[in-house]
This record gives sequence, C-alpha cells and structure tokens, in this order.
Amino acid sequence: MASSSSLTLSQAILSRSTTHASNPLPSFSLPTYSALKSSTNPTTPSLYVSARAAPRLTTRRRPIRASAAVETLDKTTDTSLVDKSVNTIRFLAIDAVEKANSGHPGLPMGCAPMGHILYDEVMRYNPKNPYWFNRDRFVLSAGHGCMLQYALLHLAGYDSVKEEDLKNFRQWGSTTPGHPENFETPGCEVTTGPLGQGVANAVGLALAEKHLAARFNKPDSEIVDHYTYVILGDGCQMEGISNEACSLAGHWGLGKLIAFYDDNHISIDGDTEIAFTESVDTRFEGLGWHVIWVKNGNTGYDEIRAAIKEAKSVKDKPTLIKVTTTIGYGSPNKANSYSVHGSALGAKEVDATRKNLGWPFEPFHVPEDVKKHWSRHVPDGAALEAEWNAKFAEYEKKYKEEAAELKSISTGELPAGWEKALPTYTPESPADATRNLSQQCLNALAKVLPGFLGGSADLASSNMTLLKMYGDFQKATPEERNLRFGVREHGMGAICNGIALHSPGIIPYCATFFVFTDYMRGAMRISALSEAGVIYVMTHDSIGLGEDGPTHQPIEHLASFRAMPNILMLRPADGNETAGSYKVAVDNRKRPSVLALSRQKLHNLPGTSIEGVEKGGYTISDNSSGNKPDVILIGTGSELEIAAKAADELRKEGKAVRVVSFVCWELFEEQSDAYKESVLPAAVSARVSIEAGSTFGWARIVGSGGKSIGIDKFGASAPAGKIYKEYGITAEAVIAAAKSLC
Amino acid sequence: MASSSSLTLSQAILSRSTTHASNPLPSFSLPTYSALKSSTNPTTPSLYVSARAAPRLTTRRRPIRASAAVETLDKTTDTSLVDKSVNTIRFLAIDAVEKANSGHPGLPMGCAPMGHILYDEVMRYNPKNPYWFNRDRFVLSAGHGCMLQYALLHLAGYDSVKEEDLKNFRQWGSTTPGHPENFETPGCEVTTGPLGQGVANAVGLALAEKHLAARFNKPDSEIVDHYTYVILGDGCQMEGISNEACSLAGHWGLGKLIAFYDDNHISIDGDTEIAFTESVDTRFEGLGWHVIWVKNGNTGYDEIRAAIKEAKSVKDKPTLIKVTTTIGYGSPNKANSYSVHGSALGAKEVDATRKNLGWPFEPFHVPEDVKKHWSRHVPDGAALEAEWNAKFAEYEKKYKEEAAELKSISTGELPAGWEKALPTYTPESPADATRNLSQQCLNALAKVLPGFLGGSADLASSNMTLLKMYGDFQKATPEERNLRFGVREHGMGAICNGIALHSPGIIPYCATFFVFTDYMRGAMRISALSEAGVIYVMTHDSIGLGEDGPTHQPIEHLASFRAMPNILMLRPADGNETAGSYKVAVDNRKRPSVLALSRQKLHNLPGTSIEGVEKGGYTISDNSSGNKPDVILIGTGSELEIAAKAADELRKEGKAVRVVSFVCWELFEEQSDAYKESVLPAAVSARVSIEAGSTFGWARIVGSGGKSIGIDKFGASAPAGKIYKEYGITAEAVIAAAKSLC
Repeated sequence: MASSSSLTLSQAILSRSTTHASNPLPSFSLPTYSALKSSTNPTTPSLYVSARAAPRLTTRRRPIRASAAVETLDKTTDTSLVDKSVNTIRFLAIDAVEKANSGHPGLPMGCAPMGHILYDEVMRYNPKNPYWFNRDRFVLSAGHGCMLQYALLHLAGYDSVKEEDLKNFRQWGSTTPGHPENFETPGCEVTTGPLGQGVANAVGLALAEKHLAARFNKPDSEIVDHYTYVILGDGCQMEGISNEACSLAGHWGLGKLIAFYDDNHISIDGDTEIAFTESVDTRFEGLGWHVIWVKNGNTGYDEIRAAIKEAKSVKDKPTLIKVTTTIGYGSPNKANSYSVHGSALGAKEVDATRKNLGWPFEPFHVPEDVKKHWSRHVPDGAALEAEWNAKFAEYEKKYKEEAAELKSISTGELPAGWEKALPTYTPESPADATRNLSQQCLNALAKVLPGFLGGSADLASSNMTLLKMYGDFQKATPEERNLRFGVREHGMGAICNGIALHSPGIIPYCATFFVFTDYMRGAMRISALSEAGVIYVMTHDSIGLGEDGPTHQPIEHLASFRAMPNILMLRPADGNETAGSYKVAVDNRKRPSVLALSRQKLHNLPGTSIEGVEKGGYTISDNSSGNKPDVILIGTGSELEIAAKAADELRKEGKAVRVVSFVCWELFEEQSDAYKESVLPAAVSARVSIEAGSTFGWARIVGSGGKSIGIDKFGASAPAGKIYKEYGITAEAVIAAAKSLC
Repeated sequence: MASSSSLTLSQAILSRSTTHASNPLPSFSLPTYSALKSSTNPTTPSLYVSARAAPRLTTRRRPIRASAAVETLDKTTDTSLVDKSVNTIRFLAIDAVEKANSGHPGLPMGCAPMGHILYDEVMRYNPKNPYWFNRDRFVLSAGHGCMLQYALLHLAGYDSVKEEDLKNFRQWGSTTPGHPENFETPGCEVTTGPLGQGVANAVGLALAEKHLAARFNKPDSEIVDHYTYVILGDGCQMEGISNEACSLAGHWGLGKLIAFYDDNHISIDGDTEIAFTESVDTRFEGLGWHVIWVKNGNTGYDEIRAAIKEAKSVKDKPTLIKVTTTIGYGSPNKANSYSVHGSALGAKEVDATRKNLGWPFEPFHVPEDVKKHWSRHVPDGAALEAEWNAKFAEYEKKYKEEAAELKSISTGELPAGWEKALPTYTPESPADATRNLSQQCLNALAKVLPGFLGGSADLASSNMTLLKMYGDFQKATPEERNLRFGVREHGMGAICNGIALHSPGIIPYCATFFVFTDYMRGAMRISALSEAGVIYVMTHDSIGLGEDGPTHQPIEHLASFRAMPNILMLRPADGNETAGSYKVAVDNRKRPSVLALSRQKLHNLPGTSIEGVEKGGYTISDNSSGNKPDVILIGTGSELEIAAKAADELRKEGKAVRVVSFVCWELFEEQSDAYKESVLPAAVSARVSIEAGSTFGWARIVGSGGKSIGIDKFGASAPAGKIYKEYGITAEAVIAAAKSLC
C-alpha cells in the first residue's frame, strides 16, 4: 500500500517542513518558477507526509499560522504558469467579491493551488457538456468559497460562467449565486453552503459510481469509471453529518472518493482553537479512511500532486488529504484571520495583495498565457467524451441489455410502462399497514426501474424497505441495491441527494420513522432546493405508532413539509393511494417526495385510486347531487377511513356527505380552478377535516366556517387505539363536528 | 495518569479474556459468587484493559459474539447478592416488556450489571428528592432501554416508579412511558429516545457542573461537585449529534463526564457489521477522550468498578468506557440478536430465560434480600442531602453573595425586578437590526440573571451573541459564560437542553442562522417536549439576508415552528419587541422560545411595546373607531414597518386602517376571546398579512376574505432590497391587496 512507502519519507520531510515554517519568507516577493505539471524529481523527496506515519505531528502547529499574515512566496525565479494560473484564480475570487462587496475570498485564495491542480491536471470532464455521464465529479463542500469553483469553471471553458457572470457574482439572476447551486450553474454537481452537506453528497456520488461500475463494467470494458473529489473545510468537519457520511464511506470502502480537507484553522468566530481541537486525522483513521497530510497547501504543488497519486493508489479506502493552507493567502494584512473569511478585502487590501503577489493586472483579467493554457480543456474534454461514446457504442453491441439499462440511468428516460408494475387493490384486499403496502411498491418498482435503489437508517424491518430480490450494497457487493445507512438520518438524506444527482435515471429512496425527519431536515430541504427527486419513505407517521410515545410520534411534521417549497408531502390512505404516491414520486424527478406511512393496519377503501392521488385531492365517495353536499369530510392517510366511517353514519341519518381524500396538498394546489371547485365547492362551507397531526394550515382548506380535528399537543405512550380515543381522533368526533355545521 | 498504570496490566489480561471468550461455558448454570462491593484483589489483575494501550484489539472480535447466544454464567458457587440484584433488574425489564407486549428488553438485560453498579455502588442521589441540586446525574441515551432505568429507580426507592408503575409500563397515564421522559418520571433527568440526544444532554449537564463549580466552589468548600454518567449504545454512536457533542466534551475537558458505551454489536437491522465498522475507540481518542475497554460487561463487575475508578482519576478528559455486553444476556435463544432488541421475549423464551439464569420467582418479584440491600438508599440519600444542606448553610454564612446566586440557580427563583434591566426604545432611537438589539438584551440580562449563559455555533459575530463582560467558557476558564459551540448546531441544541435541565435557574441561549434550525430541529423538539426553556437566538431570519442566497434564506421555518407544540415562535419588529421577546423567553422556563431576528436594520416603530409582545398580537396603530377598521394590516418582524408604511398611505386616502403586530401566534392564541376580538374583530374580513416567509398557516388569521403576502418558493442570491422588490414584499403590494378588499 502506498502509505507504507511514504513512511520512509516522512521523518526527513517533517523536520524540513517545520524548519521552513518557522522561517517565514519576506513579503512582496515574486512566485517561484516551477515547471507546469512537473513530475516529482526522484532525488528530492516529495513534500508530503502520511498522517498515519506521524500521528503526533498532526496536532496543532503554531509556527505556520503565527507567521502566515506575512508569509508569501519564494522570490528565487520567474513566475511560472502554474503560479500565474493559481494567482488568476485568487484574483478572480478577490475581484468578484470586491465588486459584489459580499462573499468569501479567504477560501479561494488558500485553496487555489489544489483547485488548479484538480481542474487543470487531474480531473476528466467536458466543459461543453457538464452532464457527460462519465465525468469526474467535484463538490465544494465549503460552499461559501464558491468563487473558487466559478473561477475554475470559467478558466476551463464552461459556458455557465463567462466573464460577465463573474462580474455579476451574487447579483439577481446571475449564474454565480452566493453558494454553488446545481440548478443555476451547470458544472456545479450539487448545492452546497449548509456545511457538511457537500461531503455527504460526495459520498453519494462515489457510491453511485461504485454501484454502477460493479453492475455494468465488464472485463473488457470499464464503462463506468470516474473519481469524486471534494473540498471541505473546518466547518464541514465539525458538523455531525460529515462524520455520519464519512463513517459510511469508510465502511463501504469508497476508494475513488478523494477529499481535500482545507485545514486553515480559521472559522467565522476566529481560530479553530476555541472550539475544534480534536485530531481530525485520528478520527478519520478510526472511520477507516486513508489519511495524508500536505503540509504546504499554499505553494506545495508537488505535495498536492503526490498526495492525489497516493490517494488513487489506495483502492479500498476513501482518502482524506489534509491540506494545510493559509486562509486569504497573499493578503499581507488579512491572511490567516477570520476577517478574510466572509467579507470583501476592501480596496486598500486588494491593492496590497496585488503588490504582494506581484499581480499587475486589472480586475477580472485572465493573462493570455493562462487563458491559452486552459483553452485545451474544451477540445480535450470533447475528445474524452467522444472516446467514451465510442466505447459505449462497442459496449452496446456486446451487452445490449446492460447498455439499455445504463442508458436509462444516464439519460433519465424510464422504461416505457414502468408504472404498470405498481400494484392495485380493491376494498376486498386485506387490510394492511401502508408501510407494508409501500414495500410491495418498492419491490415492484425495483424490478422495472434500473436505477432504483435505497434503504433505511437502521429501521429496514420497521420501515419495510428491503428489496427482496437484492442483497446489501456492501464493500464486497457493491452491485446490490439495499443500502444500510445505520442510524444516520442526516447523512442518509444528503448521501441520497448525491446519488440522485449523479445521473437523472438513478432514483434513490431512504427511510426512517417520520418523526426523525427532524434529524435530516437540512438534507431534505437541499433535496427540494436542488431538485433532487429523492423518495423519502417515512413510516410510523402519527400517534398510531403507539407505545414508543411522544418522542417518536410526529405531530407538526406534515405541516412542516407542506410549508416547504418544492417538495411533495404525500399521506396515502390505503393500497391504491400508496401505489399512487409512488407513481407521483417516481414521476417527479426534480422534486422530492415524502411518503408518510402508517404502522397500523388500514382498510382498502372504495373510491381510492392512483389517478386520484395524482390530483392531490379528490372525492372518494359522495351521495350528494349538483355539487352541493351538506358537508364535506376531508381526511388523509389513516384518518380517511375514519372520515368514510363517519360519512356512512351521517348518510344513514339522511345527510348528503362528500368524503375527500387530501393526500397531497401541493398537487391539489396545481389543479385547475374548475377541478378544485368540483371537489371543494366554494358554496359549501360545512367542512370537517380529520388528521392525526397538527391542525396548523388546515384553515385554508376548511375555511372560516369549517372545523379541523387534529392534535395540537404532543402525543403519549400507550397502545395506539387508546391514544386515538383519548385524543378524540374518532368517527364520533367527526360526526359531532359535521352536525354542528349542517 | 491512570491509563499508564493500566498499560502494564493489559497484555496479560487480553490473552486471558480472549481465551475465556473462545471457550463459552455451558447453559443452564448458576451465577458465580462474588462478594458485594468486593474490592479488587491485588493479586488478581482486574479484568479491564485500556483501549489506548491496545488499539489493535479494539476492532471487531468475533469469538465473544459468535458464542453469546449460548453464553451463560459460571456455575462454580452460590448466587451472590450482586448477581441477584442484577438479575432482578433483568427480570423486572423482561416482565414489564412482556406484560406490555411492547418495549426493548435487550438493553436492560445486557446493561444490568453497569446499571446496578452505578445506582447501587457509585452514584450519589436522594431517592426522596430527585431534584436535590448536588446529585449525580444519570442519562440513558439509549432511551429505548428505559426499563433499565425504571427498574433502578424502583429498587432505589424513587416514588415515581412503584411496582404498579412497572406493571403499567407503556400504558396510558403511567409514569413509565416508552422512553424516559423527565416531565413524567422524576428521577429521569432528561428526555431521550431519539438517538444521540442523551449523550449530548449529558455533555450539557457536565458543562453546567463544571461551570458552576468554577464559579461557586471555594478552597474551603466544594459546594458544587457531582458526576454525570451516561449509557449510550451503537445507535447513539452512529448519530452525528453524538460526535458533535463528544468533540466539544473533549475540547472542554469535561473530566466528570463518564460515558458507558454499551458495545453489543446489535442494532435494529441486525449485526452492526452491516453499517458500523469504524473504530469507535480510535475516534474517541481523536476527540480527546480517555478510553477504557471493559471486555466482559455481562458478569465482569470488577472490571466495571475498576474502569469507573480509572475514569474518575482522569480529571482533564471525559472518559468513554466501552463495555462489551451481550444484548438480551441470559436469553438462551434470543441473546445477541436483533430479535431481543425491540420486542417482548414471548412467554416461552421468558421461561427459558428464567431457567437459564436460575430465576424461580414470579413476574415483578424483588427478592427480600435484594429489597433489603437497596433499602439503604433512602436513608443514605437523605443523609447525603442533609450533609450538603449543612455545608451550604456554612457556605452561605461565609459567601453571602455567591450563595444567593447559587440559590437562584438551584431553585429557579429569578432575582426580583430582573426584567427592569431590559432596554426600551422610542421611535427616535436609531434604526438597527434586531440581531443587534438582541445583543443589547443579552448583555443586559447577563448582568441580572446569575444563570444566564450561552453562545453560537461559530456565528457569534453574525448572531451578535457575545456577552461583553465575560470571557469564553473553555477548559481552563470554565467560570466564563460565552459558549463556543463550533459549527455544531444539533449538538448545541441538545447540550443546551442538558444545561437547562441541570437546574431550574440556569437559562441557556444558543444561536445560529434561522435557516439552520433545520440542522437542530431534533434537539429543539426535545426542548419543547421536555420543557427545557432554552432560548434560541436565530438571526438572518428571511430573504433579508441577501446575497448568501436560498441555501441560507428561511422560508418555511416560521410556519414549521408555529406548528410545533409547546414552543414560542417570536419574530420581533424592533427594539421594544426584541426586549419583549426576551421578557417572554426568560419568563417561560418550561417552554423554549425561538427568536427570529433580522440581519438588516429596522426602524423603531410607534406603538410597539414589551406588554404587546406578551399578548402575542396587538394593535400598534389605528385610525378607526368602534372597533370597525376598513382593513387590518398584519405584519411580523421586518415586515411590520412595511405594513405601517402601507397604512400611512392608505390613511392619506381616507381609509380607517389598523396595524397589528403578530409577533407570537402562540401567545395570542392564549388570550381571552374578548381580547382577540378587540384586535381582530370577527366582522372585519378585510385583512392583509405580510411576512417574508411562507404564507402557510396565515389563512387562519386573515380568514377566507383576507389576503396573505408572503413567499411560497425558495429565495435568491442578490442584495436584500432587490429580492424584496422582485418577490413583491413591498408596501405597494400591501396597499394593492388592501384596496382590493375594502
């Protein structure tokens, strides 16, 4: 293994590096010359060390930071093209933030070298087709440093980031928003900013690659073969979500995931000494990662190159390359301080930085030689894609079936008639919990959708999410489709975002108890924002879970997702509605769906249908005429049968009663006014809703003249039937409310 | 340090233990004899090892687990009292779960030995006063195993858990709900169940102890002096929140926090091998903890005792005692499998377990000798408290001022007139962001409330939460009050729950951007449920934050908290309302408060007041008479001034306009019908609401005849003013809506 070879180097190197660090070089010097893509001279040991080899030295080192504010480059020789490119990146970031008077220049200034090496020397991509299937993926988990990525996309020739876009950084309607957004800027794979999400997305992207490679690669054709790179900072490292996702990455042995940890020791509140003194290296070794330490991330290009080479050689583990950098590198007065993290440098300091780094150019200028050098990526990228296309054509000839599946996955064109696989039910079908009915749908879909895979956060046997025809996705069996996330809800959600955004035809689902959406809401909101069509299978959706008590009983959760933009909150009532919910969820590839499913058995009701679910709200039974019922009873999920039962009683007493299933508010909202009027006629103000959850929001549906039966307090620990009764979620309550209105 | 002494023992012991583990003993044997509270025989090395000493052995060990289903106790001698007590705990759990036919017997059966040692030999508490200030705190982070704690509370003599309560486990109205709930069961310090929360609560409890000890202890009187113990399982370990909290515990050097990690290798989905293969020991060493491994948690009482002794001797680090146990220990056919995790054993297996452990007693029976042995805790506990009370009386004589402060903290009686410290403002006061006005309140309160402390998740300079007269709470300066949580929102919330529940007079606040409540919602819900009056200072509360873009702009968050039970969602509009929000937040010690605060400057408005905020909704200006305005404009927070501006324009045109601040919906809901009618008369249907957030829920306030101006999509990256204009959050829009209605 590569790490053992680096053991021998480390001792000598460490003393060198430390000496260097304690002898800061003077300011206002010119960058060193170094040959472009220079290979490591075998007589000079490369300036990187394996953290594994020298764990004691991975703890805080004061000298580097203490001197960093005046630390600059070596002035021995002429500016090299790499230095020039790196400084171009730095100044594009500085200038864009300065023009916007808003943004985060510090990270791009410190991470420009690793950014340059990745995009110019290492990564395989096609700037003119950011969606080329086999591209290397890059995620900037420290999303506030987005100007790094925009500068790189610009240099590489992506159409999404032209010079004017850089000048419109953080402005209305620009493709260069304040954090990377995949839906605004082709070339950004995912949406980051909320810390820790990106590295978890990267785990998902790497998982997707490993899974697809295992399923589709052949001895004579490695048709799926790319790396996933990520840059994360101290903030990402502190977030629990990153530990969750990285623990899984280690467990799964995602060898083609290479993470750069921008170890700059500065976060918004100042030096990380005040809140973050753990040994990240040791933790990652515990998580099963290969760990490398690049001591000089500011100018140590060869160290960075060698670390990437080593990382690639370690195939059974993900690699963390800890790159020690100086935030705001090059700024004589602000480098290595929080003041350069999240604010423009200011005109005076921009000038000082220009002088310090020897940068005589106007704002936003890309020197001709730099431009010329980067210009090769457009033809090279096109060639890479063409080469892969030719390879795929060969593959298609030999492996017709696999090629068709892979095509569906890479294009998002689902197999025709897939929805016919969904089961349907009649009122005579046995009563069952919607979590069980959900499992029937999941298993049916897995047979017809090549990109369908997923799992649960250690509740597979409660959420009923196992795909019976597949085994577990594990290190040694990555071709399988059951994902085992462990008790890591937040990581699970963000990993699924990464999986979903890997390819348009991959459809990940994930599961836990509905109440634990509270643990993963950060990731679910990013699903909604970043148009990742993840399917959230959320069981035990009310007090109906019974004895586990209020910590496990959702109350406000339905309302909380109904209020969230671009996410479908579905609460099916029986078999047909569960199937309908999956129909909707699979159809909505740019909008995530949350399915709230019961633990308890429910009857299959007359009148429910897949088509009804697609309209969000629809009449399941009605004995009125002329669209003038005496009262409309509205229910969702497990309470729809209570509404139906109440209707039966009321009809016996001569009332004209309509029962409406309100399975998905968002879909109903999208229907025509005429349709809405046909279900909820404005003239009928006698409306009663029943739902075992918060009544918050129902006033809009039942109107000022209606009544809402629900739960506006926490639940209780007792058998489910008892709680329903004590909380008044009963047909009797519906009947009483209805009678009071009509 | 203690760990070095254990180094010498570990080598010999390891070989012993491994040999033992690979030679499982036969079933149906009787327990070994061991003297009660037997001190470690110096000629026999104690059966524990320092994980630090032998990291290679901390990875998965198959032999122990493979044989565990048939592993039982040594049959050499007679039943000892400890064994008998431990088995009493096991069977109380088995019997209660069996009777309820619901619950989790596995953990109590495996953890009974450590539970016994803690409650019978180690912890200092008074069963008849579960709220005695200086008690040791115990948290069962693996809350599903609550029968362990209920059995222990029962044996120890707590009034909250009598025999009939055990028999009513998980039933309506019982004190023994499905997970530990502090508000139901005195003796439970916090509410657990959602995994990882408990260990983070424990970090908060230990922080509170360290802080109070540093402030109040004197060379001649250690008046604050207790330990915090926690049992957590594999599930807790997988959750990101536990890594966040434990990283902070290591950073803060919480030496009196002792965590038992129930290392049983089983979670709901089966063997942890499928999702959790990291080295927990290595990770915790990275986090700065002292780590000890007890290899035989099933019967190794002396190992457990020695580990606790060692943990106590390590004063500068928290300790993780990894206790390898067999889940469902004693059950011949279900031990060491997920089937014993979360279901009753079933009558047949209960019988088999009784035979296997030699337990001839009826369900719920506590043998007389066990009962007699435990009976000493009632008098001993009373004596402990009396001794402390006497010590406090002495302390009070010498240190009057400190004693008064400590009394306020321990009783929750706030100093009279504290609210007078809150600042007030006039319309002439300079416009300011409510986050800045909030800082004025925080600093004013810190001067008058002895238990007031808090901080931010690495956004102190943005959230404006620093207490200027205090330094940072750090390992070496625990007497200070500014907490530095790093970028760990979820851990922060749960730590604050622990701090709040340590003593009724401690009032913790914590802060981040409002949008990142998504990261900590799990903890915030537990604040609400467990009646922990944490103050959540949430700034950058809308699109008004501008350039950072939609990842950072809350939309649905106000609605999502308004839907949550027992939490106050406050959105003040200016200085007086910010002060009023703090008045409310401090007053509500059993209900958490969320303050949504602006990044941008807001004007101080005529008519706002602290008293108004206390009513939740109130009129700030009105030119109507007879409670009959033409239109009511309703705003919150930064949009109240837009409503006021629109009112000015409409009044110029002759309209009778009322402007209502709707700062806290929950408080308004609690007012009398007469008051509500005086603010929102039923006869006036022309109502317009404006709020820079989701309109979800507003229909109830504005009614079917009203209009809501808000944002039902994600935000955008641009200067704030531009987004407000593009999204139509303007006085013009309010005027147009108002004119359409009146």
